[in-house]
Amino acid sequence: MTLANELKSIVGEDFVITRRDQMMQYLLDETPQAVKPVPADEVLVAKPSCSAEVSDLLKLANRTRTPVYPRGGGTSTVGGPIPTTNGIVLSLERMDRLIEIDMDNLMVVAEAGVTMETMLRAVEGKGLLFPPHPGDEGAQVGGVVACNAGGSRAVKYGIVRNYVKGLEVVLATGEMVSMGGKLLKNNTGLDLMHLMIGSEGTLGIITRAVFRLYPMPAVTAVLLVSFGDRRTAVAAVPRVLQSGILPLAVEYVERDIIDISAHHLGMSWPAKRGDAHLIFTVDGRSEDEVYALCEQIAAACDASGSVDTLFAETKQEQDTILRIRNELYGALMGDLAESLDLAVPPAKVADFLDAVERIAREYGSRIPNYGHAADGNLHPHLMMDLQQRGILWEVKDAIYEEGARLGGTVTAEHGVGRSRRIYFNRYTDATSRRLMRGIKDLFDPNGILNPGAAIE
Amino acid sequence: MTLANELKSIVGEDFVITRRDQMMQYLLDETPQAVKPVPADEVLVAKPSCSAEVSDLLKLANRTRTPVYPRGGGTSTVGGPIPTTNGIVLSLERMDRLIEIDMDNLMVVAEAGVTMETMLRAVEGKGLLFPPHPGDEGAQVGGVVACNAGGSRAVKYGIVRNYVKGLEVVLATGEMVSMGGKLLKNNTGLDLMHLMIGSEGTLGIITRAVFRLYPMPAVTAVLLVSFGDRRTAVAAVPRVLQSGILPLAVEYVERDIIDISAHHLGMSWPAKRGDAHLIFTVDGRSEDEVYALCEQIAAACDASGSVDTLFAETKQEQDTILRIRNELYGALMGDLAESLDLAVPPAKVADFLDAVERIAREYGSRIPNYGHAADGNLHPHLMMDLQQRGILWEVKDAIYEEGARLGGTVTAEHGVGRSRRIYFNRYTDATSRRLMRGIKDLFDPNGILNPGAAIE
Repeated sequence: MTLANELKSIVGEDFVITRRDQMMQYLLDETPQAVKPVPADEVLVAKPSCSAEVSDLLKLANRTRTPVYPRGGGTSTVGGPIPTTNGIVLSLERMDRLIEIDMDNLMVVAEAGVTMETMLRAVEGKGLLFPPHPGDEGAQVGGVVACNAGGSRAVKYGIVRNYVKGLEVVLATGEMVSMGGKLLKNNTGLDLMHLMIGSEGTLGIITRAVFRLYPMPAVTAVLLVSFGDRRTAVAAVPRVLQSGILPLAVEYVERDIIDISAHHLGMSWPAKRGDAHLIFTVDGRSEDEVYALCEQIAAACDASGSVDTLFAETKQEQDTILRIRNELYGALMGDLAESLDLAVPPAKVADFLDAVERIAREYGSRIPNYGHAADGNLHPHLMMDLQQRGILWEVKDAIYEEGARLGGTVTAEHGVGRSRRIYFNRYTDATSRRLMRGIKDLFDPNGILNPGAAIE
Repeated sequence: MTLANELKSIVGEDFVITRRDQMMQYLLDETPQAVKPVPADEVLVAKPSCSAEVSDLLKLANRTRTPVYPRGGGTSTVGGPIPTTNGIVLSLERMDRLIEIDMDNLMVVAEAGVTMETMLRAVEGKGLLFPPHPGDEGAQVGGVVACNAGGSRAVKYGIVRNYVKGLEVVLATGEMVSMGGKLLKNNTGLDLMHLMIGSEGTLGIITRAVFRLYPMPAVTAVLLVSFGDRRTAVAAVPRVLQSGILPLAVEYVERDIIDISAHHLGMSWPAKRGDAHLIFTVDGRSEDEVYALCEQIAAACDASGSVDTLFAETKQEQDTILRIRNELYGALMGDLAESLDLAVPPAKVADFLDAVERIAREYGSRIPNYGHAADGNLHPHLMMDLQQRGILWEVKDAIYEEGARLGGTVTAEHGVGRSRRIYFNRYTDATSRRLMRGIKDLFDPNGILNPGAAIE
């Protein structure tokens, strides 16, 4: 029997795609053109409906040594799910059951293929909060866990890892393992669940997750604070945190870049003064509480030399600011070669921004840079001119070198995927790589899971 | 050269103990008598002063296949640090430098031997908060990370894992590895740092940690709410959480047990009515905020059938309640065979408490039970009569079986150590154990680190 027929016998005739022209959407993700991996020629797409089918599929693949590329919402910006060798794309889209919102335990149980959009709306509908908010709501539960997604709310609430309480995982051998559960504390042996989180599809297929939920804060507010220059703006962030305030998010943007996004949307950026801006989002249980928080943030920023403060009172004003911020990637995308995702210690943000600007000048280009200021997580955007001039990699090398010098990391929230493997290898010590490699061999002895990704 | 002399050449003449009568304190921890492991006969104690010495010591041990027992504050209640085979106790007590409280990054960097007491006071002195609070402040940084300590504040702030941002680790081979850093987000490859957290000294020696700090809430308050019976009390917990309130801690105690503790301290339990009590601790940024939270908690409890509410207004009233609560273990200890540490899904707390009471009746004993209600984490206390009657293990079996039936775990926050290995093995599936075993072999190929503990 051919592989395609064997797959059909497992997931059903209708859920295997063999024709190239019908599978194009499974060979793509959101990685910018310049670094997008090229998919292999001989690819099959299979869509199991349950973990038993995932298990059977993996047993088949393991026996026949066929590479398997797990795929969620396809929102990776680093080529994570792209099948770069001949093999099977395992799409989890049919495993889209939201099993349960458990009001007594304040947890949600969802299959891997549930999108963030579906899960967030359902959770909010019950008056509850899933605290992290990865940027793209098309992402699916399995991918969000496998990539330990971040997002802007990490300042107050941390990343996805903190909310994962249980996983169902199918190993490369087809063995199914349940890790954790509806448990808030669990110290039973080595934590395999936390090893799966962020493993980017290289150790096993996550088929189901249990997340902890929180009460929904009643009110959120947005405060846009303007500064004359970058250093003054960035220096205000630790001042605010030290004053005892924990905002939901603190985003840093610069006028010349945010104007591009506003223009792209046919809107205008509401801040009238200053070239460097902090967007604070705060949440709280009452209007009074949130208003008091905003006043304290404004006061701390004022003491740090801000030139203007705009309190977005109405929902519409809030949406305007956040929409322009969130459209940055979209606005720059047309001309984008690659977006980076470094984190440095939060106090080094200004140094890093300066360093990237220096590199941009040195290479006669422009490198838009913005990000999650309080997390130290920045996204330098390398534009197509660098690619066209053949210096994209040289500029990247220089930026990663500055990041490393400042105590930073190659990827904060987007993951290694395929496009950052060279930097992952360069900046990860040999001992750690040997241990990761050993763990990979242990979980996936025939190396069938996502070959070519982070840990091959 | 003898092993003792080789150790002296590494850590210095004065920092190796060879005489048994001088090392008794290194052969003990806080494990109750009935399950306390027996230390081996031929033990040496070595006290390195820096990670380079830890590395040299481990190279020696690895070459000579000598077991090494890492030891922090010795506050384990499960025999974690007790040397049960001939070998070396590696005490980290001299590595007690609080390297830095970094106000700009809001992080603290400490060597493994710094006690919680030292670290917490230093952090508080800067107006900052290390959110988790493991019960015993004699615990040391390395042990707290190695055991992923919990504590009562996990309701709002989660466990120690959430606050670890960087580790320095010495592997069994003597290789030093730096994991993470002053980074709030880091997704670079498999997360070895999270694998080290909770590994109980079986994968490597943690020599230094970086923790994230938070702003210190200005005000805390304690609310003692009384209920007529257990089920009514426990059912109020999800009601409070659903109402949008996130307390710092929610502790459950019963009158007959808490009276023992109050009596032990020569104090009296302030609640006049009801047999089942919830102690809510809340924090906030102002008296008004905290007062409003307490009112909302009281209202939610009232709607759930509480019979009395006591708002501990003064510091002294708060201290009385928390001190009586915290003395429970001490008050019961004299007659204690073993304290368990199960977690069940929070909504199953009442079922679990009932089941333990049923088991107590069945065996004609009394099993005091209390714990962190909102976390689902309970500590059934098995008393000496069970040991004397030779039914301790039978009763334990019955309790663990109930825990498992309710979707619970063998240990929530105290760890597996030595005394829970049998239950860890019983309730962990074979695949997971094989993976853990494989990871252990990868990190510690000669099995020198903490043999006899969780993952041997």
